[in-house]
Amino acid sequence: MSCTISLDAMGGAGAPEVVIEGAEIALRSYPDVRFLLFGDESKLRPLVARFPVLSRRATLQHTDEVVRDDEKPSVALRKCKGSSMRLAINAVKENQAQAVVSSGNTGALMAMSKIVLRTLPGINRPAIASLIPTIRGESLLLDMGANVECDAQDLFRFAVMGDAFIRAVLGKHQPTIGILNVGSEDMKGHEEVRAAARLLRETGLPLDFHGFVEGDDIGKGTVDVVVTDGFTGNVALKTAEGIAHMMTYHLKDSLKRSLASKLGYLLVKPALNHFKRKLDPRQHNGAMFLGLDGIAVKSHGSTDAVGFANAIGVAVELVTYDINRRITEEIRQSHAILEETVMAGERA
Amino acid sequence: MSCTISLDAMGGAGAPEVVIEGAEIALRSYPDVRFLLFGDESKLRPLVARFPVLSRRATLQHTDEVVRDDEKPSVALRKCKGSSMRLAINAVKENQAQAVVSSGNTGALMAMSKIVLRTLPGINRPAIASLIPTIRGESLLLDMGANVECDAQDLFRFAVMGDAFIRAVLGKHQPTIGILNVGSEDMKGHEEVRAAARLLRETGLPLDFHGFVEGDDIGKGTVDVVVTDGFTGNVALKTAEGIAHMMTYHLKDSLKRSLASKLGYLLVKPALNHFKRKLDPRQHNGAMFLGLDGIAVKSHGSTDAVGFANAIGVAVELVTYDINRRITEEIRQSHAILEETVMAGERA
Repeated sequence: MSCTISLDAMGGAGAPEVVIEGAEIALRSYPDVRFLLFGDESKLRPLVARFPVLSRRATLQHTDEVVRDDEKPSVALRKCKGSSMRLAINAVKENQAQAVVSSGNTGALMAMSKIVLRTLPGINRPAIASLIPTIRGESLLLDMGANVECDAQDLFRFAVMGDAFIRAVLGKHQPTIGILNVGSEDMKGHEEVRAAARLLRETGLPLDFHGFVEGDDIGKGTVDVVVTDGFTGNVALKTAEGIAHMMTYHLKDSLKRSLASKLGYLLVKPALNHFKRKLDPRQHNGAMFLGLDGIAVKSHGSTDAVGFANAIGVAVELVTYDINRRITEEIRQSHAILEETVMAGERA
Repeated sequence: MSCTISLDAMGGAGAPEVVIEGAEIALRSYPDVRFLLFGDESKLRPLVARFPVLSRRATLQHTDEVVRDDEKPSVALRKCKGSSMRLAINAVKENQAQAVVSSGNTGALMAMSKIVLRTLPGINRPAIASLIPTIRGESLLLDMGANVECDAQDLFRFAVMGDAFIRAVLGKHQPTIGILNVGSEDMKGHEEVRAAARLLRETGLPLDFHGFVEGDDIGKGTVDVVVTDGFTGNVALKTAEGIAHMMTYHLKDSLKRSLASKLGYLLVKPALNHFKRKLDPRQHNGAMFLGLDGIAVKSHGSTDAVGFANAIGVAVELVTYDINRRITEEIRQSHAILEETVMAGERA
């Protein structure tokens, strides 16, 4: 796939080194991609020069303005119009690039992307979607925190968008979809999740709706797409991260307790490394802002070059799949059906 | 502490064996406790006879009625008035016992406990509170699912009740309290969590309010009491369980991959067992229905005798601490202060 990705070269803890090296790594899997790099030219030029492949496929655009990590989104929006983040987003708006990737300030990236790219027709609220590891592989969780309160129609649209993401990035033909709830029975939970489930059952779109899932279904990988509001999704993702960290901590601590276990540790180390790779957050890096009229991928702020390359890969797959055209089409189809459902409800 | 605990001897997957053996194990730590056992006498009598210590400290009360695990709470409430669960709860209401422990149907236990025991003065909504392991030890999470929607005053009361629980069961002098949110800054989250935080800051009760915490703070053990609504709490707890299960699965799978790692596994096995014990859900068994006028402890339905003994231990500690008298007193004090806050808000 020949496409151009614009990179906020100054965003994230390891920028610009991580961004430049990540772009070079991504070219091994996607040799036809071109990059627009936004950032401080005096820093970027010598870095890019170290990678002959990247040098031929990257264009630098200088700016010395950067969005700080602690900048409030509203302030960043007003004051950082010349920042590397803003210019990288503008490049998508102006069709110079097909997607933007940034490891910078999440709130600012969301606010700027919303203002510059706007939402897709029929979408009011973009959602942050992120892949997380499961027993069976990986699943997509959305919304991860863009919207603390969501109604049934929002949740329905998240399902449609998540379905398209899984088809695009994991290549699954018929992803299964679940709504996160406190039980699997129809009467469980609050009105918004119950109404969203009814919409998904009744729309007639070719979606494989599994029904309600519970928190433990995330790790089990029961469904490919886990739909929830941004409050619950943010808490669930961060809880998962915290528990994974706690378990690794206790595991390491336990392995240090005796001479035998220290010896044994040397023997099991390759196995533990395999275990670590399975759960490596870098392999699941690249959260997408779904629902915007333009592809914007958020890379984790503290990822390394391998993780950043993965986020670029997510962006390329989304461009290749033409995800936004497909989401727009499904939302358009479901709009008609949603209205019918609402009207039928009113007649009843 | 000399007290009497009533046991639903027929509740849970391993009943009645797990209940009887659990009671025997609990007597090793709490030799002065007495038990009222409700259930099928023909099954219970020979089981109890195997434990001479328990035989001297247990009284059997026969019933052949049982609440099934798939029974709807509303049906159980109407139809199971002679069940082992209902009679065990009644015993607390009638002052024959100071607490009830059951591994049976959670919804039915909550519904029956609410109807029979009623709530404490000043409490509208009881909450389910559960200890979970962290890096620093264990923390209490509430509400775990009794109330899918909670307002600021509910969250405030959960904080007061959770504080009392930690003092009672873990013996901490000044537990720290956090409200679960999507960020730590004051303006984050929805109105209910922000208003609850204001209440906790302004009430003047001797509570150590830390502020907002995020999902990953659960595993870190940042605070002793994590306050949230029942929807988010249920999802967070089950997400944590699912991720812990997934990690154990991947760890075992990785350790089976080579001869060296299988050999090494023999050497690290004691360390891994130590790791397993650290996270053993049996050690954290015993969720309490906080806010009821009577102590009701829910044991996990699939726990074993050691886990059930732990749930009995939680019940005994709560009785010893006289938790409900203390909660009532703090809620009474905070009622005055809450009203002042509300009135001050209206004047402003």
